[in-house]
Amino acid sequence: FTPIWCMSFCFSLALSNFNSFVIRTNTCGELRSAHVGQEVTLYGWIQYQRQGLFLVLRDFQGLTQIILPQDEAHSHVKKLLSNAPVESVVRVTGIVSSRPPGQENPKMPTGDIEVKAETAEILNSCKKLPFEIKDFIKKSEALRMQYRYLDLRSFQLQYNLRLRSHIVMRMREYLCNLHGFVDVETPTLFKRTPGGAKEFLVPSREAGKFYSLPQSPQQFKQLLMVGGLDRYFQVARCYRDEGSRPDRQPEFTQIDIEMSFVDQAGIQRLIEGLLQYCWPEERGPIVTPFPSMTYKEALADYGTDKPDTRFGMKIVDISDFLRRLDIQFVQNALSYPHGTVKAICIPQGVKCLRQQCITTDAVCDATFMKHSFPGWCLSDFPDSKIAPSHYLPSLLQCSALGNLRLESADLLEAAGLVLRDPTAFHFLWVVDFPLFLPKEENPTELESAHHPFTAPHPSDTSLLYSDPTKARSQHYDLVLNGSEVGGGSIRIHSAEQQRFVLEKVLKEDSEVLSHLLEALEFGAPPHGGIALGLDRLISLIVDAPSIRDVIAFPKSFRGRDLMGNAPDYVTPEELEPYHIQVSWPLAERGKEKL
Amino acid sequence: FTPIWCMSFCFSLALSNFNSFVIRTNTCGELRSAHVGQEVTLYGWIQYQRQGLFLVLRDFQGLTQIILPQDEAHSHVKKLLSNAPVESVVRVTGIVSSRPPGQENPKMPTGDIEVKAETAEILNSCKKLPFEIKDFIKKSEALRMQYRYLDLRSFQLQYNLRLRSHIVMRMREYLCNLHGFVDVETPTLFKRTPGGAKEFLVPSREAGKFYSLPQSPQQFKQLLMVGGLDRYFQVARCYRDEGSRPDRQPEFTQIDIEMSFVDQAGIQRLIEGLLQYCWPEERGPIVTPFPSMTYKEALADYGTDKPDTRFGMKIVDISDFLRRLDIQFVQNALSYPHGTVKAICIPQGVKCLRQQCITTDAVCDATFMKHSFPGWCLSDFPDSKIAPSHYLPSLLQCSALGNLRLESADLLEAAGLVLRDPTAFHFLWVVDFPLFLPKEENPTELESAHHPFTAPHPSDTSLLYSDPTKARSQHYDLVLNGSEVGGGSIRIHSAEQQRFVLEKVLKEDSEVLSHLLEALEFGAPPHGGIALGLDRLISLIVDAPSIRDVIAFPKSFRGRDLMGNAPDYVTPEELEPYHIQVSWPLAERGKEKL
Repeated sequence: FTPIWCMSFCFSLALSNFNSFVIRTNTCGELRSAHVGQEVTLYGWIQYQRQGLFLVLRDFQGLTQIILPQDEAHSHVKKLLSNAPVESVVRVTGIVSSRPPGQENPKMPTGDIEVKAETAEILNSCKKLPFEIKDFIKKSEALRMQYRYLDLRSFQLQYNLRLRSHIVMRMREYLCNLHGFVDVETPTLFKRTPGGAKEFLVPSREAGKFYSLPQSPQQFKQLLMVGGLDRYFQVARCYRDEGSRPDRQPEFTQIDIEMSFVDQAGIQRLIEGLLQYCWPEERGPIVTPFPSMTYKEALADYGTDKPDTRFGMKIVDISDFLRRLDIQFVQNALSYPHGTVKAICIPQGVKCLRQQCITTDAVCDATFMKHSFPGWCLSDFPDSKIAPSHYLPSLLQCSALGNLRLESADLLEAAGLVLRDPTAFHFLWVVDFPLFLPKEENPTELESAHHPFTAPHPSDTSLLYSDPTKARSQHYDLVLNGSEVGGGSIRIHSAEQQRFVLEKVLKEDSEVLSHLLEALEFGAPPHGGIALGLDRLISLIVDAPSIRDVIAFPKSFRGRDLMGNAPDYVTPEELEPYHIQVSWPLAERGKEKL
Repeated sequence: FTPIWCMSFCFSLALSNFNSFVIRTNTCGELRSAHVGQEVTLYGWIQYQRQGLFLVLRDFQGLTQIILPQDEAHSHVKKLLSNAPVESVVRVTGIVSSRPPGQENPKMPTGDIEVKAETAEILNSCKKLPFEIKDFIKKSEALRMQYRYLDLRSFQLQYNLRLRSHIVMRMREYLCNLHGFVDVETPTLFKRTPGGAKEFLVPSREAGKFYSLPQSPQQFKQLLMVGGLDRYFQVARCYRDEGSRPDRQPEFTQIDIEMSFVDQAGIQRLIEGLLQYCWPEERGPIVTPFPSMTYKEALADYGTDKPDTRFGMKIVDISDFLRRLDIQFVQNALSYPHGTVKAICIPQGVKCLRQQCITTDAVCDATFMKHSFPGWCLSDFPDSKIAPSHYLPSLLQCSALGNLRLESADLLEAAGLVLRDPTAFHFLWVVDFPLFLPKEENPTELESAHHPFTAPHPSDTSLLYSDPTKARSQHYDLVLNGSEVGGGSIRIHSAEQQRFVLEKVLKEDSEVLSHLLEALEFGAPPHGGIALGLDRLISLIVDAPSIRDVIAFPKSFRGRDLMGNAPDYVTPEELEPYHIQVSWPLAERGKEKL
């Protein structure tokens, strides 16, 4: 049987009684030498059985070896249990005994004992599995998702879901019990926010009118502050319709927090305390306060606003060095205003990446969009690979080098180097984001870097009115090992300033937000908050390859539930109360008759 | 100022620190004589102010009296605070002082002290309110909902939301920490369940395919049991599209629970323990175990399956008494097979309800659908009102008398009698429901009394196959003071039995549930559960007239958000990715151009 099942859940609370309200006397992970001689009743799944001699019974807590009776008087018990297929659910009552000397299994918490079955009952027989549970992990993810209820029986998913539940409970204790936060539920049937192109629509019974499933409780949490709630939190279900994107889910969960009369440092200290309080002991301690880096520094040093600080290979400016050399295309680049050449130094790059040169070139080609030059090494920069940043004076251009840095790290690790300690957790605050960014489709117009409710940096308030492109915001991101796990800001609480941002800077119709603007006029307190992406955070803590591994019933990357087959066709009659009809694409006309 | 604000929240945890991470030194409900001499910084709303002498500052925790400085050196502070409109948000820093002798306010927790302001800051001014906050309760509910963020500042809503948060936290502690339950989030984007006519639809980007917002996590929680989770709970958001119905919400919350290897008594004891654990001290103790009553008894004695057992006036059978009298239409009724005449005895009915005779007659007319006879009194039944049950031999007909019983109770209480102690909480289990009921639209066909996953009563398993109409179920309802606050059942865990119910009894296409049927074949454990209606439960605990009073942002009874104006129109372009278009009712064509 799978040895991984011998592990127990370190985070299980000693206080918890798993046997209350049920007839079992013990779980399958509980029995020890101290129980020898007791009559016990266990319920579980047959994990394994051997030649009518013994079987291994499994439940969520562990495994217990059951010895089948061999005497004539109990022949029906032996027959019953021997004939039950693997993964059948059974009740076994029997006496706890010491295992014969030499047969103890020290890797198994219950490895000192076995239970001699006296009576048994097959509660539900299992039909032949389409695969063996223990091999499940090797199966295609589609198959695992189709039979999710079987996958959930694996140690790994049980562990992930139980740890998730435990961490969230600890977060609640910290927020609610220790710091006076109020858990308030906010609506998920609301209306479109401006620019809410990624919001699912829900047709109502009023012709032409739709609810929208919000991407976050942003408006509601601000209104709760206006309502004097003072400290709000919610484990909030959020929705985002992004079509097909890898490792995104159409519904996801965030730890949503908002406070009145708080500044950026207040929120940061709160979150550091929160994470320290809920952090699972088995992952080692985390140190607070977390380091902080400005957006500008992050882009300059790491080429990204979510730097993975577990390893170096920072971006360095080699313009001054190169200026001395007579390389024509480099000199060309440097002759532009603000022209620079930047590089990352890859430790043992020549030794380790010689074979990968073609790969890294491919990375360069892809990330520099053909603006790269071939990889080469300078003797003064041993083991280095030099690549130019695009010469536009925008820090954003560093992202190409940032991508190269991460790709190189992957390649180095594939070559056997340990760059990033898999047990290390590097939290980082990234601060001082710009308030606005040029719109991708039309760079002469501005859009909010995060959302229009973000307050300007206290030092940049006058810039908001004079030169908004230069204004920094009071937005902060929380980064863990190179992934964004949270983000928040101090919000605008002045109606006048909010109206200016919406109408004058963003050129948006503020009418759809009139309720919020009006609320700000009725004594809205200064406030700010943050949201932590729970799925991502948990997946990093348990080192899962995907957030799908920390969600009980995830959707496929196309947004489908492969177990229940959702979304699905509905009849025209079912659409009628909602006053909608399907506009079939030409190729699919007639399909509605299916 | 409103005296109700002088109350404090009894359930506030002594451990909670409301001043962490912010600059204030204290909340407005905290200061006592012990603080005299300290310099404090408070943040809050101006509740009231008087002639430049003092003002009352309010936050979520209470009120503090602030004395404005009268000396020349502080004239700017006086001016600032005197000119700030009511409900403006201010910071005040000053020294805590004892109130002058005789000016203490014993009704106010901070009534022994006042704060002498030294510096102050207007953080946000409040424009003229459309009404006074303290009179809010008298305003129309539509106005209160439009300005919900102002209504939230009232003591009552703060109290309701904070108590709700506290009760849910206690529930989590009980389930998660004490009894090993796992908090698992289940999807809200799923697909239609058979007969799910009340499920909102969510169009997907695949033409013609829709998600559905589930009415409960029923399928998922059962699948979690198949997945070996053993003990699941979730504070689950649920959706139900019922159009306009008073005191229903399109989205609501239930405490959703499922356990493996449990029987009905196990779930009942769990819930009793849960409610006892989370019950607010200030509402007095509740006694467990809760009394239990069969569905048959409930209908016979109270004419409803959710009896309000806080008062008597049970239904009695007076057929034998009436058989002796020569009243023709009564004799007619009694001559039918199973013909009976039933009555309720209304204490002091003649005295109290003489004036209301017309009203009760109206009730009779309405509830008996014109089958009633005029109310009259018999000398042998002093103070009684006699009304016949419909003569069909179905217990359901008792519902008319059940309604009359409740209406009469209302009338008696309006007349000054105290029938139902407003501080009493009468919990009751109603059990042994029928498994199936005749369909209303076609009584020869059967439908599930609750849902198709409900297991038959252990004594009635064979009836399921021989005469399903007679089979009782393992469904149980939890009733509090005449309102259903929970319901659950032991579920079918045999695939064969589940298929029989779906295909043979309910004549439904089991294909849409094929994933569940298949799951039952793979070693599904016996399991059962319950769901508590959180909104209703909290509203009963705080004695709120509507569940809207315990929800931060409720919808109107037409399902509208009156603050943000949802649902709302969207453009045809926004519908395009979802391959739907609006079918405008004829009368509204052209409206889409608006």
